[in-house]
Amino acid sequence: MSMKQWHLSPGRFFDPDPTQRDAAMALYERIKDLPLLCPHGHVDPRLFSDPDYTFGSPVELLIIPDHYIFRMLYAQGIQLEQLGIPRRDGGQSEGDHRKIWQLFADHFYLFQGTPTGSWFNEELRSVFGVSEKLNGANADAIYDQIDSKLSSPAFKPRALFEQFNIETLCTTDAATDSLEHHQAVRASGWGGTIRPTFRPDGVVNIDATGWKQEIDKLSAVSGIDVVDFASYIQAVESRRAFFKEMGARATDQGALTAHSQRLSGAEVEAIFSRALSGKATVEDAANFTGHMLMEMARMSVEDGLVMQLHVGSYRNHNSAIFEKFGLDKGADIPIRTDFTRSLQPLLAAYGNNPALRLILFNLDETTYARELAPLAGHYPAVKLGPPWWFHDSVNGIRRYFDQVMETAGLYNTVGFNDDTRAYLSIPARHDVWRRSGANWVAGLLVRGMIDEEDAHQMCAALAYDLAKSAYNL
Amino acid sequence: MSMKQWHLSPGRFFDPDPTQRDAAMALYERIKDLPLLCPHGHVDPRLFSDPDYTFGSPVELLIIPDHYIFRMLYAQGIQLEQLGIPRRDGGQSEGDHRKIWQLFADHFYLFQGTPTGSWFNEELRSVFGVSEKLNGANADAIYDQIDSKLSSPAFKPRALFEQFNIETLCTTDAATDSLEHHQAVRASGWGGTIRPTFRPDGVVNIDATGWKQEIDKLSAVSGIDVVDFASYIQAVESRRAFFKEMGARATDQGALTAHSQRLSGAEVEAIFSRALSGKATVEDAANFTGHMLMEMARMSVEDGLVMQLHVGSYRNHNSAIFEKFGLDKGADIPIRTDFTRSLQPLLAAYGNNPALRLILFNLDETTYARELAPLAGHYPAVKLGPPWWFHDSVNGIRRYFDQVMETAGLYNTVGFNDDTRAYLSIPARHDVWRRSGANWVAGLLVRGMIDEEDAHQMCAALAYDLAKSAYNL
Amino acid sequence: MSMKQWHLSPGRFFDPDPTQRDAAMALYERIKDLPLLCPHGHVDPRLFSDPDYTFGSPVELLIIPDHYIFRMLYAQGIQLEQLGIPRRDGGQSEGDHRKIWQLFADHFYLFQGTPTGSWFNEELRSVFGVSEKLNGANADAIYDQIDSKLSSPAFKPRALFEQFNIETLCTTDAATDSLEHHQAVRASGWGGTIRPTFRPDGVVNIDATGWKQEIDKLSAVSGIDVVDFASYIQAVESRRAFFKEMGARATDQGALTAHSQRLSGAEVEAIFSRALSGKATVEDAANFTGHMLMEMARMSVEDGLVMQLHVGSYRNHNSAIFEKFGLDKGADIPIRTDFTRSLQPLLAAYGNNPALRLILFNLDETTYARELAPLAGHYPAVKLGPPWWFHDSVNGIRRYFDQVMETAGLYNTVGFNDDTRAYLSIPARHDVWRRSGANWVAGLLVRGMIDEEDAHQMCAALAYDLAKSAYNL
Repeated sequence: MSMKQWHLSPGRFFDPDPTQRDAAMALYERIKDLPLLCPHGHVDPRLFSDPDYTFGSPVELLIIPDHYIFRMLYAQGIQLEQLGIPRRDGGQSEGDHRKIWQLFADHFYLFQGTPTGSWFNEELRSVFGVSEKLNGANADAIYDQIDSKLSSPAFKPRALFEQFNIETLCTTDAATDSLEHHQAVRASGWGGTIRPTFRPDGVVNIDATGWKQEIDKLSAVSGIDVVDFASYIQAVESRRAFFKEMGARATDQGALTAHSQRLSGAEVEAIFSRALSGKATVEDAANFTGHMLMEMARMSVEDGLVMQLHVGSYRNHNSAIFEKFGLDKGADIPIRTDFTRSLQPLLAAYGNNPALRLILFNLDETTYARELAPLAGHYPAVKLGPPWWFHDSVNGIRRYFDQVMETAGLYNTVGFNDDTRAYLSIPARHDVWRRSGANWVAGLLVRGMIDEEDAHQMCAALAYDLAKSAYNL
Repeated sequence: MSMKQWHLSPGRFFDPDPTQRDAAMALYERIKDLPLLCPHGHVDPRLFSDPDYTFGSPVELLIIPDHYIFRMLYAQGIQLEQLGIPRRDGGQSEGDHRKIWQLFADHFYLFQGTPTGSWFNEELRSVFGVSEKLNGANADAIYDQIDSKLSSPAFKPRALFEQFNIETLCTTDAATDSLEHHQAVRASGWGGTIRPTFRPDGVVNIDATGWKQEIDKLSAVSGIDVVDFASYIQAVESRRAFFKEMGARATDQGALTAHSQRLSGAEVEAIFSRALSGKATVEDAANFTGHMLMEMARMSVEDGLVMQLHVGSYRNHNSAIFEKFGLDKGADIPIRTDFTRSLQPLLAAYGNNPALRLILFNLDETTYARELAPLAGHYPAVKLGPPWWFHDSVNGIRRYFDQVMETAGLYNTVGFNDDTRAYLSIPARHDVWRRSGANWVAGLLVRGMIDEEDAHQMCAALAYDLAKSAYNL
Repeated sequence: MSMKQWHLSPGRFFDPDPTQRDAAMALYERIKDLPLLCPHGHVDPRLFSDPDYTFGSPVELLIIPDHYIFRMLYAQGIQLEQLGIPRRDGGQSEGDHRKIWQLFADHFYLFQGTPTGSWFNEELRSVFGVSEKLNGANADAIYDQIDSKLSSPAFKPRALFEQFNIETLCTTDAATDSLEHHQAVRASGWGGTIRPTFRPDGVVNIDATGWKQEIDKLSAVSGIDVVDFASYIQAVESRRAFFKEMGARATDQGALTAHSQRLSGAEVEAIFSRALSGKATVEDAANFTGHMLMEMARMSVEDGLVMQLHVGSYRNHNSAIFEKFGLDKGADIPIRTDFTRSLQPLLAAYGNNPALRLILFNLDETTYARELAPLAGHYPAVKLGPPWWFHDSVNGIRRYFDQVMETAGLYNTVGFNDDTRAYLSIPARHDVWRRSGANWVAGLLVRGMIDEEDAHQMCAALAYDLAKSAYNL
């Protein structure tokens, strides 16, 4: 048996059965080169505002900002300081990037069979032309290879944007963001389409440290003095209008749960006033978020911005890591979630409104078949986002197709979001989705459940059409 | 590549691997023509009491009563009025059935890869002899083809009963139903076996609008004046006796949760009296349902009717649709459910009793492996119903086999229920089950986990034997 | 079609696709003969302390102690008395073992497609050389065949230990156990490695009947008079030290939930004192268990014993069976569980501590991808145990690989535990795991997600390396 030919082979991620694999390949061939739509993600707009932007060292590009990678090493007892992750207190972190790279390469086997491993291998191969698998012995040579590419003009973000064939890329930006980088992109005359997305979390989460400063920023940036809930709403609406003017097509809100409820004017004013004086309780915060979900839906009905909602992540679960290193260090852990009861008030108010498009994302896969697919298969306002975060993987995508599509119907989903800060991983992520989509559709085809015409239409929808229409791109 | 040959091919729904597919086909060949047992469903008994019953137009048959179909169109922004769904207030709904059919055909692509699409295609082909896939262009011609069939004598329900090879069909009938249509079937001398099923929900759900009227009907139809809980129980028992006399083999209760608990006599009388005077609370209703689960189990022990329990559907989630169009409009959304704790009181009281057979149905698939299979694999009274509603599909059935069978054992399940109001879809639904069953058993066979003798026995059990014995047919 | 060749074939449990099957076989060939590590299980140490130990009749060996088997028969209406299960009140149970065996053989078809059926078939074939499938007709002959083997010297536990190629076997022993059998094994000079495991449940569950007697035993066996919480902790620590001295590598705690919380000294003393006087409430018991999880973690940090935690089983769900026959009669039913919130206090205190290794086991598979994999993929202290109990099966293992590995990474799991009291089933159980592992890895390989080098390394890790290092064997 020669097992070697399979690794990263042209038919990778397809089922091994030759009938299905051939069908998948034929379907994939027609969609693999479609332009990439990136309607939700976390790439820094600075990459595109500065024509001379450089990515720094391989470690600055690939390790330090990637919590998928360093969480796995941390789980195996490697300290974040050893990986160059900066400490909040300014304490010592490793500064020798070759040493960090070597440590990573020595432990690269930890990523066997993981999506992080797949993306990384694909990125090394397709983006950097590295043909060997990374290991302790070739670490230095591969570092050099990447490093020399990174300093070439072809590795400017704008050049890669063309090379990756990205049609539109949406960033995620705080409600209080000046969008100066988006303005600079526009002013530069460069032709790439970069759109902001309105993220209200910083001004909605009244129990977060720093909320009051965010409110001060909100006042400053909107020119509306936020002194009560009414002025707060005015300021939020004014920021949405500005984002829309700057090309935004959507908002994106994160919440621990999908709890929605309209509070009375008096209740919400009382909570807001407690928040302003630093006296809001945990319950106040949950109620306020529930009310703001209703308000965000109302505003979307009014201004036409697509509403995205990501729920179910218990942020900063590891308090010691949060204190030492801050947010987004791989310690956000999903919790069980409910939509059927929680979203009922919001859907009763806005779910039948043709002016609302609400895209739901979740980390609790048990809700796929039980709640999300039935909701999307009924309410005109509801659409389902692709599998999120941990589930944006070959298995995760397969489970999503399996559990969502029969009940929701493909056309109540919205195609793919790469949802990444790792700009260079974008083609690899879309490729996993397109291959997984082609393989799923091929499975339906070779089981006689659809015909060839349907199959091609479904693949095109998954790869391009659904995202285009869901996000009004 | 020619993909055309797969669509609706003889080996449809089987795994594409040739070894498994051939084994599945060989197993399926032996069961595909077994008579159909339909122990739980919602076909109107009127179809059989009136020998001249006609189905109306293709739209009256296939669109207006089918919430699987119109919910998907509604989710895409088509108004229910445009589809001819009658409004409760008598307001305008589309009356031109060709126009409705055209609208449906234009959007038939929405059903790609869904069970509704599969059933519909199969029904068109096998029942109506339509060989093309429905689309906007052939809509009118296919309408004519169906319409002309529907007016032929072969399309009388009794003739189809023979053609479909149905051995027994059980309907679902309110506790207060006179069963006049069942009486008429008996009186007619026609040989088909149609049995009623006792559904107590209308007289159990004390918080439902119309409960008091149901109680008045119960008094009238039973001849027992329901003035307190004792007379209520007497009346319910008398109706069960009447249903049994009319051929019923089972009861069927729906409940939001599986909560069971025996209340004291004083408590239940107090709740019942509050209900009679219109003062029952939501908590009263939940407690009363919990108590009535105990009572229904007790009665089943006494009269031998099989007890069916369907839990976990949040009915009429979309309040605007409910107000405008009423029940069963595709807006029932599943919720998370628990059986282990909720059913413990009932099982402690009756779970070891050989006179009880309790068949459980659920929409929360997470309970399959975690709760339902272990309960069915231990308690002599407990059996598992087939996958319900959204999960009565190729994927849903596969997940059920995968998650239930290892722990419950095949012989603690009850075969198939088509659970449909759509009479003409019955053969297609049984065929999906039989093919899925043959494919699952073939998977065990080609993995060396069972032998050929076991395989044939298991397939026969799935297709026929289990339903026959579970429902005493 | 000849389906006969598949049953128990050399490629059993592998996917039928020839590419994947061949790859799986090639991988399996390299690991199938590795020594067995059994770091968690329930084999009686008496088997090894007494060199002349005999297993009794086939029924005493295979039926009476195996709740997997008799629960399935009970679910089909066979009384436990008919199967020779002893009653607590000393009442009559069947004593004719041939009659019991016949009853079992007549109903052996109930195990079609179940893991119990697979293990049983494999055990009969590999351990007893029985080549026919058990049925009513050959029951007697197979009984004789097993019986004669059982009386041969090759069927002494120590001889089988060699034959099975077991490297280490860990038992599970109450905190109050004298470990006399472990002492006797040591004293005997026999070379097999048998290690005890410290199980504190009897002294932790303050609401269990018999807790007070366990505390008295704890005082006696530790020589520390347990009069308050402080002396209780001292006694527990002294027992852990003794277990460690006797070769223990781990502790194992069972709990209904994963709730952890550190109580104040005053609170815990108050609860303990209520417990001593028989006045502890259900809430006290839950809080005490939550506190003791913290204490067990602290002790593990101090003494280096690996901490195992099994949660989510509602024990003795069937009260009538419990009263008549006692514990472990197949009536333990899983419940929904949570780890993200419940374990947060424990992980905040000890999750980053390199001296702790906490291995988690659960019966609620919904936590695999949602909670357990993300926790194990982040916290250095957390590792995931293999699928437990009902899920220790071909499908259960497949679901575990599918849902755990992408996020947790293989190296944050701990290989296999057979977790069995059925000594003779150990090789069959490990074989199911190794075959399932090889098949999963082959699936990654033929999908191009890993290369051959990775594949072999992953299989060796699954079969041997991970267990060896996780349990410090």
